[in-house]
Amino acid sequence: MSKAVPASVTRLIEEFARLPGIGTKTAARLTYYLLRAPDEHTLALSEALRDLKTSTRTCSICHNITETDPCAVCADENRDAGLICVVEEPLDVLAIERTGTFTGRYHVLHGAINPMEGIGPDQLRIRELLARIGTPDVREIILATNVGLEGDATAMYIYQRARGKVRITRLARGLPVGGDLEYADSVTLAGALDGRREMDGD
Amino acid sequence: MSKAVPASVTRLIEEFARLPGIGTKTAARLTYYLLRAPDEHTLALSEALRDLKTSTRTCSICHNITETDPCAVCADENRDAGLICVVEEPLDVLAIERTGTFTGRYHVLHGAINPMEGIGPDQLRIRELLARIGTPDVREIILATNVGLEGDATAMYIYQRARGKVRITRLARGLPVGGDLEYADSVTLAGALDGRREMDGD
Repeated sequence: MSKAVPASVTRLIEEFARLPGIGTKTAARLTYYLLRAPDEHTLALSEALRDLKTSTRTCSICHNITETDPCAVCADENRDAGLICVVEEPLDVLAIERTGTFTGRYHVLHGAINPMEGIGPDQLRIRELLARIGTPDVREIILATNVGLEGDATAMYIYQRARGKVRITRLARGLPVGGDLEYADSVTLAGALDGRREMDGD
Repeated sequence: MSKAVPASVTRLIEEFARLPGIGTKTAARLTYYLLRAPDEHTLALSEALRDLKTSTRTCSICHNITETDPCAVCADENRDAGLICVVEEPLDVLAIERTGTFTGRYHVLHGAINPMEGIGPDQLRIRELLARIGTPDVREIILATNVGLEGDATAMYIYQRARGKVRITRLARGLPVGGDLEYADSVTLAGALDGRREMDGD
C-alpha cells in the first residue's frame, strides 16, 4: 500500500482481510473505524483474540470447544446423557442450543466425509462417537449433519456402523437442501428436532 | 449465550459484533473460523490490533494517521507542498492514493460539519488548515470532501474563509451524489481529480 498508510494500519487491514468474507475495503473500514473508536474497544478485541487460543481446548468427551474438560454440557447432570446430537462443527452446537428445546448432549465430528478434499472417517471424531455409543447409557443418537452430499454421506457412514446398537434418528427434512445448519432459523430447527425420524438406510 | 459456548468464545463474538456491519451471526462465524485456523493467524490479528493503538498518532501537519511525525507524505520532499488535498477522513487519503495520480499533500479534517450531530467547524481541523494556507508556499487547495449535505457545507465553509488567499478547487462532479469517497473506483476518482475546477461559491 501507499506510504500514506502507516505500517501498523496496513498490517491490521491485511490481517482483517484474511478472515473469510472480509475483503480489503471492508478490512480498511474496520481498521479506520477502530482508529476513531475508544482505545478500550480495540484492546478488548485484541485480548479476546489472544484469550481465544490460550483458554480454549476441545472437550475429551464431546469434542466441542470448551474452557473446562469435560465441557459444561457434558458435566451438566441435568442434560440427558442417553441422547447425543451429532453435529459437524462447534457452530452447529450453538444453532441447536439457540432452539432452547434440546436437553441431550452433543458429539462434534469436526467436519464431514469429503473424499474430494481427502477427508475420510478417520479425520473425523467418528471412532470416539462409536466408543460413546458402546456404553450402555446411550439410548439414541440424532444425526444432525448438514443436509447435502457430505453431511448425508457422513450420517450414512455412522448409521451403518452404529445400527442395532442404539436408536438412530436424523433431523426432519424441514431443512432446505444445501442449507447450512448454522443459518437455519430457530423455529425451523426446533421443528426439525421435534420431527426427527428413525433412520432406515434408504 | 448458552453454556455450551465457553466464555472466551462468547466474548470474542461480542467484540466482533461491536464492529460496524458485523452482526452476531457473522461474528460467530469469524470466531469459529479462528478456532479452526492456525494459532498464528489469531495471534497476528491480536497483535496487529494492539499495535494499531500503541504505534499510531496523528501527523501534526496534515492530521492523517501516522507512526512518525511528520508523516511520510508530509516529510516527502518529492510531494508538492504547494498543493493540498483536503479530505474528511484518513480513509479518504487511502482512496486518493490508490489513484496513483496525486502528487501533492493532504489535510485531514476528521469529519464534516453536521449541525444535527453537533459537529461544527471547531470540532474539525479547519483552523489548522487555514493556518497552513497562510504560509506563502501553498498555491492551491483541492476540497475533496464527500458529495452531499455535510461535505458540501464543509467545503463552502472553508471556501468562504480561504477565498482570495489561495487557489481553491473541488473535485469534478463525476462522483455520484451521496457517494462516499472511499467507495469510488480509482478511475472515477482519478478523473474527478483531473477535472477539478475553480470554486466560485454558487
